[in-house]
Amino acid sequence: MSEIGLFEVIHTLRSMRRLKPDPIPRAVLRQVLEAGTKAPSGQNTQPWAFVVVQEPDGKRFLQEHYHQAMLHRFGLVQPKPGDRSPQARMRRAAVHLAEHLHEVPVLLLVCGRRDWPAVVPKDKREGKAPPSFGSIYPCVQNILLACRGLGLGATLTTMHQFFEEELHQRFAIPEEYGVVVLIPMGYPQGKFGSISRRPVAEVTHFDQWGNQDFSF
Amino acid sequence: MSEIGLFEVIHTLRSMRRLKPDPIPRAVLRQVLEAGTKAPSGQNTQPWAFVVVQEPDGKRFLQEHYHQAMLHRFGLVQPKPGDRSPQARMRRAAVHLAEHLHEVPVLLLVCGRRDWPAVVPKDKREGKAPPSFGSIYPCVQNILLACRGLGLGATLTTMHQFFEEELHQRFAIPEEYGVVVLIPMGYPQGKFGSISRRPVAEVTHFDQWGNQDFSF
Repeated sequence: MSEIGLFEVIHTLRSMRRLKPDPIPRAVLRQVLEAGTKAPSGQNTQPWAFVVVQEPDGKRFLQEHYHQAMLHRFGLVQPKPGDRSPQARMRRAAVHLAEHLHEVPVLLLVCGRRDWPAVVPKDKREGKAPPSFGSIYPCVQNILLACRGLGLGATLTTMHQFFEEELHQRFAIPEEYGVVVLIPMGYPQGKFGSISRRPVAEVTHFDQWGNQDFSF
Repeated sequence: MSEIGLFEVIHTLRSMRRLKPDPIPRAVLRQVLEAGTKAPSGQNTQPWAFVVVQEPDGKRFLQEHYHQAMLHRFGLVQPKPGDRSPQARMRRAAVHLAEHLHEVPVLLLVCGRRDWPAVVPKDKREGKAPPSFGSIYPCVQNILLACRGLGLGATLTTMHQFFEEELHQRFAIPEEYGVVVLIPMGYPQGKFGSISRRPVAEVTHFDQWGNQDFSF
């Protein structure tokens, strides 16, 4: 089988927030999550865990809390009608996602053990230690790339931070884990396409900050 | 051009800590960094910046501080001779890397703007806000995958946290940025090969934590 190329995927990985309700085959989901587990982690601790929410009650719980958090805690400002800027389009898609979250076939919670920073002794920590962001986000990015590679749309969200306590209770997530991201995934309504970013030369410094080369 | 496949890369991305001194062509380096900039970031802020250290004095500075930090701050314990466990082999490779860091052709510092959490007002923050880990590590993972895709070895390191003040001064990195990772990159002495991780079924829960399916 000729598989999709690495750079094709990297260059067309767009956040997809309008998703079809069609189910994701189990083998496809497995391939996506397995790609996540191939990521590097500090001292190879592999501190990730996945909660795959597919049943209607769990999805409705997530939709209601997510939508409330977006409107009332994060305070998303709805764009004016007719505003066609990229920011306005992103916000409209974000609202669409929040309103339709329960219709998405898989809502994936990526959790991480609270083992960071590993070098801080437990009795010196204030409150709950955060999960290992540096050991979880590479896994998250592998998951997003694998979704794109298999034709699935997905997007990285962190709105759940506003209701993490409730999340832990609802899904029986142990206290030793934090929830790092919520990734809605499903087959996209729209098409993948190239994405635009600031030119790499603008953000690259050679040997010393400020030493840029705009021909790079 | 038939490019390398996404899943081939994900499944063979091993941390490479024994690297040749051979230079990295500019076009290859550009392709690697551009892959980084294609990553998602919170509200598409693209808060990354790269410092590419190639000149001998800068590399020597990094090697000396990194090596010292590993021995005296992190307190790496050298494995006993004859210990062939994966942990012992990883530690030996880590010591090798620290001793030879200045011989690696490119030492890449990936920096992130201290804009997280964006929702905490500046006057409520204690000390320096951390960089946006969630908006930088996807970029870091793209860089590691792109290296592998182009035949370069690399590894994600965070030992620089022990001497970040000195780093900022030496490379004139503005205070608004934190240094998130140091990635040594070069052509590998060894070969890429498949990597082993815990089975995905062990870390996957369906609908509720504890509801596992070991046939997954």
